[in-house]
Amino acid sequence: MPNAQQAPLKIAVAGLGTVGAGVLKLLETQGSLIEQRCGRRIEVVAVSARSKGKDRGVDLSRVQWFDDPVAMAAEAGADLVVELIGGSEGLARDTVATALETGKHVVTANKALLAVHGTEIAQKAESRGLTVAFEAAVAGGIPIIKGLREGLAGNAVSEIHGILNGTCNYILTEMRTTGRDFADVLADAQALGYAEADPSFDIDGIDAAHKLAILASVAFGTPVDFSAVYVEGIRQVSAVDFDYADQLGFRIKLLGIARRTEAGVEQRVHPCMVPVAAPIASVDGVFNAVVAQADFADRVLFVGRGAGAGPTASAVVADLIDIARGRSTPTFGVPADRLGAATPSPMEARRGSYYVRLMVVDRPGVIADIAAAMRDQNVSMEQFLQRGRSPGEGVPVVLTTHDTDEAAMQRALATIAASDSVLEPPRMIRIEQF
Amino acid sequence: MPNAQQAPLKIAVAGLGTVGAGVLKLLETQGSLIEQRCGRRIEVVAVSARSKGKDRGVDLSRVQWFDDPVAMAAEAGADLVVELIGGSEGLARDTVATALETGKHVVTANKALLAVHGTEIAQKAESRGLTVAFEAAVAGGIPIIKGLREGLAGNAVSEIHGILNGTCNYILTEMRTTGRDFADVLADAQALGYAEADPSFDIDGIDAAHKLAILASVAFGTPVDFSAVYVEGIRQVSAVDFDYADQLGFRIKLLGIARRTEAGVEQRVHPCMVPVAAPIASVDGVFNAVVAQADFADRVLFVGRGAGAGPTASAVVADLIDIARGRSTPTFGVPADRLGAATPSPMEARRGSYYVRLMVVDRPGVIADIAAAMRDQNVSMEQFLQRGRSPGEGVPVVLTTHDTDEAAMQRALATIAASDSVLEPPRMIRIEQF
Repeated sequence: MPNAQQAPLKIAVAGLGTVGAGVLKLLETQGSLIEQRCGRRIEVVAVSARSKGKDRGVDLSRVQWFDDPVAMAAEAGADLVVELIGGSEGLARDTVATALETGKHVVTANKALLAVHGTEIAQKAESRGLTVAFEAAVAGGIPIIKGLREGLAGNAVSEIHGILNGTCNYILTEMRTTGRDFADVLADAQALGYAEADPSFDIDGIDAAHKLAILASVAFGTPVDFSAVYVEGIRQVSAVDFDYADQLGFRIKLLGIARRTEAGVEQRVHPCMVPVAAPIASVDGVFNAVVAQADFADRVLFVGRGAGAGPTASAVVADLIDIARGRSTPTFGVPADRLGAATPSPMEARRGSYYVRLMVVDRPGVIADIAAAMRDQNVSMEQFLQRGRSPGEGVPVVLTTHDTDEAAMQRALATIAASDSVLEPPRMIRIEQF
Repeated sequence: MPNAQQAPLKIAVAGLGTVGAGVLKLLETQGSLIEQRCGRRIEVVAVSARSKGKDRGVDLSRVQWFDDPVAMAAEAGADLVVELIGGSEGLARDTVATALETGKHVVTANKALLAVHGTEIAQKAESRGLTVAFEAAVAGGIPIIKGLREGLAGNAVSEIHGILNGTCNYILTEMRTTGRDFADVLADAQALGYAEADPSFDIDGIDAAHKLAILASVAFGTPVDFSAVYVEGIRQVSAVDFDYADQLGFRIKLLGIARRTEAGVEQRVHPCMVPVAAPIASVDGVFNAVVAQADFADRVLFVGRGAGAGPTASAVVADLIDIARGRSTPTFGVPADRLGAATPSPMEARRGSYYVRLMVVDRPGVIADIAAAMRDQNVSMEQFLQRGRSPGEGVPVVLTTHDTDEAAMQRALATIAASDSVLEPPRMIRIEQF
């Protein structure tokens, strides 16, 4: 066990945005608590950011300043570099590479970098006996990487699913509770700072997909494979879908799902209908949640804030404390050179049920045509809802199916979409029965 | 990082009941996965249990057998002893003490032992550079000790609350969903193996109190203080309370709550009314849940199975893997000789609102008397429900209060109970607004 006489852990912080300032503030506020907990101090010796003059609410007077984070990674007298720049390429990637090449541990919140280059970075670190820690990259303040990689280390995990993007969950929650439409709620979320000016990274599911790829690697012991993630965002979810979801006993959530099946590893991010009683269904607003299905522990759920200065700083500092305590774990749970490549299971192989919403002309024979298109693909309908009548005009029709293959469902939808009785492209949301 | 050439971690297992057999089965099933994850094997070299002949579904032929676990702790050629005997005194305590005195790490699922002797055991271990790990002692398969002690290590935690006893949660869930009464549901739970033949340890709240005392120590960095836990079980919760709870928008849960207040540290276990929308309200059946309120991470919730062979074995093995990986953390988050004693805040100092159910004679003036008893103690009523009328006979009356002091509430209840218009002892359930 480390004792109080140990030298401090010296760290250099690259990136002083919301999270970087949060980390410095946390280290300042909890200095003595952290020293008690790990038997040594954590000392910030250098920082780097774009603008030197900006007031970040923390005292940087005794800290070395670098304009260039890569130079800092190389030259700062630090044991460890905290990378909070973001992005899968450029400065962030170079900073991490340089830190490792010059013998420094890395703590990062950068999901894009790990999703795209995670395996390579892990190999580089491990071959040098260094640690790359990334609790803050997934689900903010929830200790999910630790929970999976250490807490469930005795288990084979067969499935992970979660609400991995707080912006989307906030928007979907607001749409459900207020009945307002997507564009309107998005504008509000932007005004409140819950969504970026360019929101596409969040609402198109990319951010959730980055996190899912990392989680899948940790859960299954496979190389990070972001390119294999099927991604669909929330732009197509409409206010009326929430009414139907209510009626059918579902909530609509953007989920990341990774599952080991006989066909390989599924990784997908898309809007889902989940039963109201599923624990994840009641996780609302900016909260994130992750469920792991493990063979011995069974189902474990983690819920907490997925973003923000405090929660993300909490995760960064948990990694710092681990390293200060001399604790180290293979980056993705097993050594990077032993990660076992998995066959990606394509989206077409997904098996499950579906919710479909159509706008059709209210005239005899239309429903029969839809039913025939489904039958021809062996898709069996479970429920069928038509509200109101307006002969000769458009009426919404909603149906749900029994379990079927994605490929068959897609073929049926293509046939239905081609019919001239169908006035808008069909909307489909996958149903997940957890 | 440990490498594959390292010697195996040799363990001796004391106690081969459900959990012990589960641990052996897990180690057998996941042998190669565990070796991958920690770079060395975990090898069972000795076991001890009451009955040697019993078939436990695992091969013990190559393992040394001890009739006496204390002798095993002293003599087995092991690096570590897993204590799964149970109980705060006797064999379990002696086994742990002997293991530490002879230089062996300890992994235990024994909440009673740690609740009563935790600080002393931690000191004994830490002074020898040994680890005592106890993930399995609290909330079964949920990695809550790791989550608090490491995942939230950068935070000051102000409150922990949780559903810590699956038996009680199962009984309360069944009572709510079926409308059946306590005795009836308890008998069923016993038949299903969810409750012991002598259920008092669970239903009187002792088991939850043991776990709460451990959680409070880890969360606040204070010595384990089981004797300071206020404990009230679920025997007094009646079927009719669930009807009223529904009507008032509450669920009834047996919670353990530990809170830092200005008056000191509150530790209490008792039935609570919690708002239906609180995340913990929808954790049903044998599941456990723990919520931590942390200054930087904010609220984090963990949910999972609180008991059973698989989940508990998962927690035991997570500790084994940590130790095999060479990872060690102070037993209660900070070194045992630095745990900061805290003033216990007495139950009388609790501030909050209350649900009270009375059976009163339906005659003029009775309600005025009750209201006066409350007013005399400065207890302000929020809601008042009387259902039905039967002049001269008994009718149930339910009221809820605004925030008030426990001491004032107790005085008001004593006055009310003494009235001859009140036919049964008042039933009171504390309301917790999370």
